[in-house]
Amino acid sequence: MLSDLSVREFLDELAGASAAPGGGSAAGLAGGQGAALVSMVCELTIGRKKYADVAAEMQAVLTQARSLQQLLLELMDRDARSYDAVMAAYSLPKGSPEQKAARSAAIQQGLKGATEVPVQTLAACVQVLELAKVAVAKGNINVVSDGGAGVLAAYAGLMTAAINVRINLNAIVDEVFVQEQEAKMRALVSAGQAARDQAWQIVRDKLGLAL
Amino acid sequence: MLSDLSVREFLDELAGASAAPGGGSAAGLAGGQGAALVSMVCELTIGRKKYADVAAEMQAVLTQARSLQQLLLELMDRDARSYDAVMAAYSLPKGSPEQKAARSAAIQQGLKGATEVPVQTLAACVQVLELAKVAVAKGNINVVSDGGAGVLAAYAGLMTAAINVRINLNAIVDEVFVQEQEAKMRALVSAGQAARDQAWQIVRDKLGLAL
Repeated sequence: MLSDLSVREFLDELAGASAAPGGGSAAGLAGGQGAALVSMVCELTIGRKKYADVAAEMQAVLTQARSLQQLLLELMDRDARSYDAVMAAYSLPKGSPEQKAARSAAIQQGLKGATEVPVQTLAACVQVLELAKVAVAKGNINVVSDGGAGVLAAYAGLMTAAINVRINLNAIVDEVFVQEQEAKMRALVSAGQAARDQAWQIVRDKLGLAL
Repeated sequence: MLSDLSVREFLDELAGASAAPGGGSAAGLAGGQGAALVSMVCELTIGRKKYADVAAEMQAVLTQARSLQQLLLELMDRDARSYDAVMAAYSLPKGSPEQKAARSAAIQQGLKGATEVPVQTLAACVQVLELAKVAVAKGNINVVSDGGAGVLAAYAGLMTAAINVRINLNAIVDEVFVQEQEAKMRALVSAGQAARDQAWQIVRDKLGLAL
C-alpha cells in the first residue's frame, strides 16, 4: 500500500518518472489530510467544559472523519493501481487489426475503471468539506486554523479529483458514459465548493483574516 | 522526523488530540506534494522528442522543485517542533508575579519563533506555484492534470501557511513585529495567488475544464 510508505518515500514516488502514483493519489492524500485535521479539531473540542453542548455532535463528526480518512487512503492506493491497468492495456500488441481492436477495447475499459476512483474521491472530499464546516463553526476556536487547514486540504483533494475525472473522460469514446460521469462530477464539485465557501467564510471571520 | 513516519501514521498523528502536528505541518506536506508533482511533470517531459526545445528549462525547474520538496518536508517537521516550544512556555509556573512575567515573555518569544516557520512555508509555496506555472505551460500535455494537482496542492499549502501566520499574530503583543509579518504574509499570498490564477487558467484551457 502507498500509505505504508514514509511521507518522504511517497513524495519521491510521486515525483518520479512514472505515470503512477500521480494526481489521483495526491487527491486521496489531500482529502485524507483534510479528514485528519477535522478529527484533530473534534479531539480538541470533546471533553472541554466550554464546548459541552456540542460534544455529542463533535463525536459524530469525529467518527465520520475517521472513516473518511481511512477511505481516502485506500483511494490513494487504488488510483495508482487502476492507472497501472490502463498502462498495461497501452502496452498490448497492436500488430494485426484484431490486436489493435482488442487493445483499444482494453484501454477504454481501463480508462472507465480508472475514472471510478476519482469520482469516489470527489464524493469523499465533499463529505470531508461538510464535516469541516461543522468543525470550524462549532469546534474549539483555539484550533480554528487547523480546521481551516482541513478545509483547504479537502478542497485541493476535491478539485484534484475533478481534473483527474476530466482528463480520463477526454480519452473515453463512449459518449453516454462521458456525459453521466461529467454530470456526476459537476454535481459533486458544486456541492463541495458550496461547503468550502461557507466553511472558509467562518474561518476568515474567526481569525480576522482579510484574505 | 515527521517525514519518516508512514503516510498512514502521519495522518494519525495529525488527527490526534495534541496541538502538534497540526495545520502548520499540513501546509508543509501540501507544499511538498505540489513540488513533487511539478517534478513528475518535468521527469515525463525531459527526453521526449516533442519537448526537446524546453528540455533545458524543464531540467532547471526539476532541480528547483526537488530542493523545494526537501525544504517543505523540513518545514513540516520544524513547525511541529516550534509549536512544542510554545506549549512548553504555556506550562511554565505562574504562581508569583515574576513567574507570570517570565512565562508571558517565554510564550511571546515562542510565538514569534513559531511564526517564522509558516512564513518560510509561504515563501516556498510561492516558488512551487511559479514552477508549477512553467510546468503546466510548457510540460508534457499528457500529464497536465498532474501539474494541475501540483498547483492545487501548493495553493492549499500557501493558504494554510497564511492562516497559521495569522493565528500566531493574533496572540502576539509586539505591534511592530505583527505589522512586519502581516505585510510579509500579504505580499507572499498575493504573489502566490497570481501564480496560481495563471497556472490554473492554463490547466483549465488544456483540459477543456469548465469549472
